[in-house]
Amino acid sequence: MQAFGERFLAGYDSALDLNGFSGERVASRLSAIADIGLTADGGSCRLGYSKEEKQAKDLVCEWMRLLGLDVRSDAAGNCFGSLSGKNDRLPVVICGSHIDTVPNGGHFDGVLGVLLALEVVEMWKTTGYEPERPYEIAIFSEEEGSSFNVGFVGSTAVMGALPEDGFRSLRDQEGRSFSSVVEEAGLSLARFIEARREPTEIAAFVELHIEQGLVLEREGLPVGIVSGICGLVALEITVKGLAGHAGAMPMRYRRDALVTASRIVSAVSELPAQFSDTAVATVGQLNVFPNGANVIPGEVRFSIDIRDVLAEPLDRLVARIVEVASEIAGAINVELSWTKTLSLPPIPVDGRLRAQQAVAMREINLTAFELPSGAGHDAMILGARVPIAMFFVRSKDGISHNPREFSSLDDCAIAAQALSRFLAKLLSETVSS
Amino acid sequence: MQAFGERFLAGYDSALDLNGFSGERVASRLSAIADIGLTADGGSCRLGYSKEEKQAKDLVCEWMRLLGLDVRSDAAGNCFGSLSGKNDRLPVVICGSHIDTVPNGGHFDGVLGVLLALEVVEMWKTTGYEPERPYEIAIFSEEEGSSFNVGFVGSTAVMGALPEDGFRSLRDQEGRSFSSVVEEAGLSLARFIEARREPTEIAAFVELHIEQGLVLEREGLPVGIVSGICGLVALEITVKGLAGHAGAMPMRYRRDALVTASRIVSAVSELPAQFSDTAVATVGQLNVFPNGANVIPGEVRFSIDIRDVLAEPLDRLVARIVEVASEIAGAINVELSWTKTLSLPPIPVDGRLRAQQAVAMREINLTAFELPSGAGHDAMILGARVPIAMFFVRSKDGISHNPREFSSLDDCAIAAQALSRFLAKLLSETVSS
Repeated sequence: MQAFGERFLAGYDSALDLNGFSGERVASRLSAIADIGLTADGGSCRLGYSKEEKQAKDLVCEWMRLLGLDVRSDAAGNCFGSLSGKNDRLPVVICGSHIDTVPNGGHFDGVLGVLLALEVVEMWKTTGYEPERPYEIAIFSEEEGSSFNVGFVGSTAVMGALPEDGFRSLRDQEGRSFSSVVEEAGLSLARFIEARREPTEIAAFVELHIEQGLVLEREGLPVGIVSGICGLVALEITVKGLAGHAGAMPMRYRRDALVTASRIVSAVSELPAQFSDTAVATVGQLNVFPNGANVIPGEVRFSIDIRDVLAEPLDRLVARIVEVASEIAGAINVELSWTKTLSLPPIPVDGRLRAQQAVAMREINLTAFELPSGAGHDAMILGARVPIAMFFVRSKDGISHNPREFSSLDDCAIAAQALSRFLAKLLSETVSS
Repeated sequence: MQAFGERFLAGYDSALDLNGFSGERVASRLSAIADIGLTADGGSCRLGYSKEEKQAKDLVCEWMRLLGLDVRSDAAGNCFGSLSGKNDRLPVVICGSHIDTVPNGGHFDGVLGVLLALEVVEMWKTTGYEPERPYEIAIFSEEEGSSFNVGFVGSTAVMGALPEDGFRSLRDQEGRSFSSVVEEAGLSLARFIEARREPTEIAAFVELHIEQGLVLEREGLPVGIVSGICGLVALEITVKGLAGHAGAMPMRYRRDALVTASRIVSAVSELPAQFSDTAVATVGQLNVFPNGANVIPGEVRFSIDIRDVLAEPLDRLVARIVEVASEIAGAINVELSWTKTLSLPPIPVDGRLRAQQAVAMREINLTAFELPSGAGHDAMILGARVPIAMFFVRSKDGISHNPREFSSLDDCAIAAQALSRFLAKLLSETVSS
């Protein structure tokens, strides 16, 4: 076991080894995956369809086989490990996540969800629990989209929603085509369509993931229930004023593009609270032209990323941001133009499943705290056609996509108990809902 | 005559050919200089100590010789054309500017001041005016500092203030040393010190220059009197907050470096008016890190350029900007650090000379309007040791350092009348003041 695994196991309270859960096994497995694509910074680099992602999938598949699961992979490289139920004609409950990472990512994003989906089967083997329905562990391919800027590839293929033509023109930073990269991974883009599964044959998809935010840490809670996956509207704004000499242009004649942009950025930070508790709006990218210390900025281009788990307040917030930005620009006599570059609706999380998550958590004395997911996940893709549920596990300092990403093994152990109890409720249902 | 010269002369009101002034001669000469280093965009490129600057100097020197002036150049490449007075033991009045340009500059910046300093001698030749004191036309070398980022070289050498050691390490974008560039121009850096002149032997330095701003155009005036040359304080500010995922971080936990910077930029635009009518403050350069559309900015670095012609309000404005910036950062719990990268005091323009400029202008029915100079000029350098006066000529649309830089020949003709009348007042004085 490497340094990461030791550190992960070091502070563990072994009293949390309950109902067949093994902290040592989870730490050992997470560490073994972390060793695949380990970076100089101690992070993970397992890009989608790389040999590292394949190696990590193979290792998990080997653990699934040792546990007696029926293991298979599909035309998009997704891997599944099936546990039979008493009645395999009932729709399956799938649990899992992805195992690829961003270029210098952490050891928890995605992989924790895969390993705990596996760990619950280990637990059931110990406790003797036998599901009514079939259960499947899923490892989706290429969730991060680090090479081609298109993520959720495996889960999108399963939903049959992959725009094959769009993929043909994709090139990574080294100029390789998407087709050639998947061919190196032993797959064929033309056959991705065969990965499609009938949504009605899936009773539910459950994903456990690290939060990648600060909410659970600030609330002092190890695990949370995801209330919904935020919709996202992305705007690109350009303001054009009048460039000029910083010394020769009196303040009263100025049409300063950066002063305009700054007033908009400031307003954008204050508007979400007027529309919903969960809405957020961020100016993350801003570029000034000509960007010289002694030149009044003539043009500023910036992005606004607006999200909410609630569709209607999101729409109203977007409209208000555009309105306020136009008012601010108009008052300074600066031209403003904007385009909507992305518009994804919120994906609701099934209310019945959320209620069952809450019951499962309360049964083991956990607070059933709900929080939205601001980031996208494979569950978002399946959520378009299939009932979904998500658990978030507390992230230390909210850090993610970074080698310093960390969740304590205690929190993982508690999350595994909640997950196993919730899944058992779903898997014990004998009729389709 | 090329296209520029034709355009310049086209709208001219020849009724302004008064007291020996010739619009056609000025247009022809300005056009001849514009042809030296003409760029593809129709602009000028005569870098300091280039062969184009030399060629332009040689041409003006030839015109000076034809007019019977005593022409010489000094160890820093500055050129002077002397007209004897009745009493050459009296301190000299010098009038001029520079003839070098930025890489794709206009046809007026600098050169207009040189040509009108020459035109007044043409006028006096016609009117028969003979000065009491000696008069000199000056062409200062390398005012713009385009190649080595150090301007005002010729005028600084005349003041004996050139830090020779500092120049030894300078390299241009092609890696050439300052020494080798001046050697190619037939000069020696080691001998620049010989260009020094005794300040007490100079009664006054007068510079006529295009405004490079919008004030005279907005005021509807062809010519203005420079009230002083602005002092400049340059600050570099860094704000460090907490980077995070634009979706996963609720608004209430954010410590957004760009929101902080934006509030400061907005405040900076409002503060100057509280301290003086002439103060300006500009955030011209601003860079966001990591500058990703879906990442809350963790750090923003920006410049603040603060100027005023009045020393005391400038100091108070700088102090207030730092104070307000710190308050804004403190309120958002974001770290702020700042450094003062430049601090140049305002250079006053001699009050007695300004009064005489005003009298000269009123005598020919011009409004004696005063405005500060936000940019630096050779007069700023001489102003440290010698009484100075400056005239500004109206700039079309305030555009400068650009091929579109333009001042009408009518305005130039009016400016020449004001300049000639003012200089005649100074040159008629028989005692040192």
